[in-house]
Amino acid sequence: MSWLRHLSSKFSSTTITSTRRFTSLSRFSTSTAPARHAGLGPTQAHEKPRVVVLGSGWAGCRLMKGLDTAIYDVVCVSPRNHMVFTPLLASTCVGTLEFRTVAEPIARIQPAISTEPGSYFFLANCTAIDADNHVVHCESVTEGAQAPDPWRFTVSYDKLVIALGAQPTTFGIHGVYEHAIFLREVYHAQEIRRKLLLNLMMSDVPGIEEEEKQRLLHCVVVGGGPTGVEFSGELSDFIVRDVRQRYAHVKDYIHVTLIEANEILSSFDVRLRQYATNQLTKSGVRLVRGIVKDVEEKKIILNDGTEVPYGLLVWSTGVGPSAIIRSLDLPKAPGGRIGIDEWLRVPTVEDIFSIGDCSGFVESTGKTPLPALAQVAERQGKYLGILLNKIGKANGGRANSAKDVDFGDQFVYKHMGSMASIGSYKALVDLRQNKEGKGLSLAGFVSWFIWRSAYLTRVISWRNRFYVAINWATTLVFGRDISRI
Amino acid sequence: MSWLRHLSSKFSSTTITSTRRFTSLSRFSTSTAPARHAGLGPTQAHEKPRVVVLGSGWAGCRLMKGLDTAIYDVVCVSPRNHMVFTPLLASTCVGTLEFRTVAEPIARIQPAISTEPGSYFFLANCTAIDADNHVVHCESVTEGAQAPDPWRFTVSYDKLVIALGAQPTTFGIHGVYEHAIFLREVYHAQEIRRKLLLNLMMSDVPGIEEEEKQRLLHCVVVGGGPTGVEFSGELSDFIVRDVRQRYAHVKDYIHVTLIEANEILSSFDVRLRQYATNQLTKSGVRLVRGIVKDVEEKKIILNDGTEVPYGLLVWSTGVGPSAIIRSLDLPKAPGGRIGIDEWLRVPTVEDIFSIGDCSGFVESTGKTPLPALAQVAERQGKYLGILLNKIGKANGGRANSAKDVDFGDQFVYKHMGSMASIGSYKALVDLRQNKEGKGLSLAGFVSWFIWRSAYLTRVISWRNRFYVAINWATTLVFGRDISRI
Repeated sequence: MSWLRHLSSKFSSTTITSTRRFTSLSRFSTSTAPARHAGLGPTQAHEKPRVVVLGSGWAGCRLMKGLDTAIYDVVCVSPRNHMVFTPLLASTCVGTLEFRTVAEPIARIQPAISTEPGSYFFLANCTAIDADNHVVHCESVTEGAQAPDPWRFTVSYDKLVIALGAQPTTFGIHGVYEHAIFLREVYHAQEIRRKLLLNLMMSDVPGIEEEEKQRLLHCVVVGGGPTGVEFSGELSDFIVRDVRQRYAHVKDYIHVTLIEANEILSSFDVRLRQYATNQLTKSGVRLVRGIVKDVEEKKIILNDGTEVPYGLLVWSTGVGPSAIIRSLDLPKAPGGRIGIDEWLRVPTVEDIFSIGDCSGFVESTGKTPLPALAQVAERQGKYLGILLNKIGKANGGRANSAKDVDFGDQFVYKHMGSMASIGSYKALVDLRQNKEGKGLSLAGFVSWFIWRSAYLTRVISWRNRFYVAINWATTLVFGRDISRI
Repeated sequence: MSWLRHLSSKFSSTTITSTRRFTSLSRFSTSTAPARHAGLGPTQAHEKPRVVVLGSGWAGCRLMKGLDTAIYDVVCVSPRNHMVFTPLLASTCVGTLEFRTVAEPIARIQPAISTEPGSYFFLANCTAIDADNHVVHCESVTEGAQAPDPWRFTVSYDKLVIALGAQPTTFGIHGVYEHAIFLREVYHAQEIRRKLLLNLMMSDVPGIEEEEKQRLLHCVVVGGGPTGVEFSGELSDFIVRDVRQRYAHVKDYIHVTLIEANEILSSFDVRLRQYATNQLTKSGVRLVRGIVKDVEEKKIILNDGTEVPYGLLVWSTGVGPSAIIRSLDLPKAPGGRIGIDEWLRVPTVEDIFSIGDCSGFVESTGKTPLPALAQVAERQGKYLGILLNKIGKANGGRANSAKDVDFGDQFVYKHMGSMASIGSYKALVDLRQNKEGKGLSLAGFVSWFIWRSAYLTRVISWRNRFYVAINWATTLVFGRDISRI
């Protein structure tokens, strides 16, 4: 620590009179023994029991929000320190919303995580789970050339909640990971935006051939689920409202094509599907039925041999279990998700729960699999928070101590309906409880208003609610922002 | 174009009734001959004369804003499609302001550039200037693995304005480019923010040694000019207000050190300097007088051998001529900038002007060099816009046709004073016209208020004015955003 002594002698003594700096410098002299592969050991009797949450999506964050931090310490392990408000992510790609408004820091969702002495957020990935010893193995997330080597460490848990989500499915199609962009994280939206604006500007450079211009400005979306449809709608809004005005030279070259193997919005009421199809076509989105066979750098190839040149390719064909979920030695549900029982517990092991897209009911429950929706994840997170609090109050919070606790009501999922925006101030609202059921279906401006209002009250913090409202208002008044930063 | 015919046959004919898609598809059949190395040739008699502006900083953007687009077509060549409002850039690193609020798209500053048929923005770098033939050589900017090869093209000009700015000086110190981050572009601010938040989270991972924790959270700023001081002030505000609350576990480890070879804020009044020194020290910034000798991955080495470990290193020691400026075969001013006369013309060549940080008066003018300040650049841009409009009205707009035009008043720079914020709601305002002069000097909250008000009225568009005000208000109410996206 010799540099510190040097440093202090370098302070310009004529101008610095405060003694405060010496206080702060003294902190530098504390040094303990190295402990490279350390971690958090089992909780002691004088500590609160520890809930370890893997993941920071809808399920994990809703759970952490509901946990009683007077009963438990909370440790979250995730490669990102915020939750992504996924339903509004498509709007950020074209500048309708700021990226930041759809990202909610975990420390705002559960403040204890950054203030309580026994609660932590670790920017890390889970690499393995030792269910017998109640230990999670982790590796810190680093990035860039200057980043330090990843650290390996372990965290002991009293209760473990696996909420690691899912990963995009590619059906083994070659080239998807290399050339397509998914739409699940904020950095995906940033990449789409940068690419779109780059292509708009590239196509205006003198000497670019007509055919290359067409390619650069051809935006292809694969997958006609709500995400693909909402993104296509936002894109066509952006083209109609902003590109025509701000990129007048190339406005006639930009096109959006949505490719879907079956029907778009297949979970929606047939009349809503019809409405969406008409509406998207009207606003210039070309709907193509086709199956993608191969993805190359500048074109995709469909099953029947059709070649589709593209400048921007967004892939949104649903999700499946991720590598870490597949690798875990835990009971599985049909389809490869982690198996859970009616109380969201993982059978055959103690104190492990799983919620959200990474989990599914084991066959023995006789329950139908739940869709991979934010709605399901959120409801499960809420349920499990209440359940864990109840277990904690009944003195079942410690590892291996909940065997005699009455878990009470099972988790029951009631579908509240689906919504999707389709651009041009129009949206779909389907309030049927299942695909075959009857119920209210709405389409048009009123639905769009309901869609906006619903999301505005759901964006978690007041800060972000406020920003989303402000963003929407400024987009209306000033148009979308087109700076490429 | 066979894929297009295929595509149209793939539309789900039961659901698509609009004929509009055929209209849009027909656009794809237009195809012209390839013209890879084409460009914009000399303007014809029926066209407006063309002003080509290289760069999109304060000087270039202020000029474009003032150009009369009834007289001229405007072509801007720059590697970024927006102007950066540099005085507020430091605030974006710690989340006080959004990145987007300090970036103003050029198409908003001069709308003609995206709407007039003869006006363009090219995302490109200038690689050479052929003054004899009135031609600029350019290369398009691309990035990423999937980006197309850069395109080379030429643009003929009637009037050329070189406003390429300057680049950070490193005094040839080894390792600065590799390990330090500058603070001149929005992506610099983004990099600083990501690194700062990564280090905050890394330092909380179990098993990190105390010494490593100290290093990770040691933020070092080299250079005590306004940028370095403002960034240090923002950082200490962030630490006091947000880190203490949101990163409670590591709050005692984070420190800011400002290293300056001479005096901080050397252009300011001595009492203001004294005030700033006291204020920064009080808010925990350690001021160190020292000369950096070498920069390594995790530490810097000072001239006297002192080693200073750091987790984040921001380099802000002023600017000098960039490589392209040095390579241009044009008259130079002392110090290597492009030489200009009293009317901001480059002598010995026709129709070339230069403004902003890249230019300086040639020795024969007998004028003292102007500082590399936004203020100077903006005033020069404004002056040159008026001058070019005047030349155009006097029929001197075409290449080689302004020889007989009376250029009128010379450019005279009157310094309006300097401002710098130093954190904790305090700022300095120095209204003296030069270093030796007398005049009003203010420090404290009132100055801070003046500082905010002044910038709020200067952020160019109403959209961004509005956003800056909203950002400041929300930071006050909710604190800074800490999501790392």
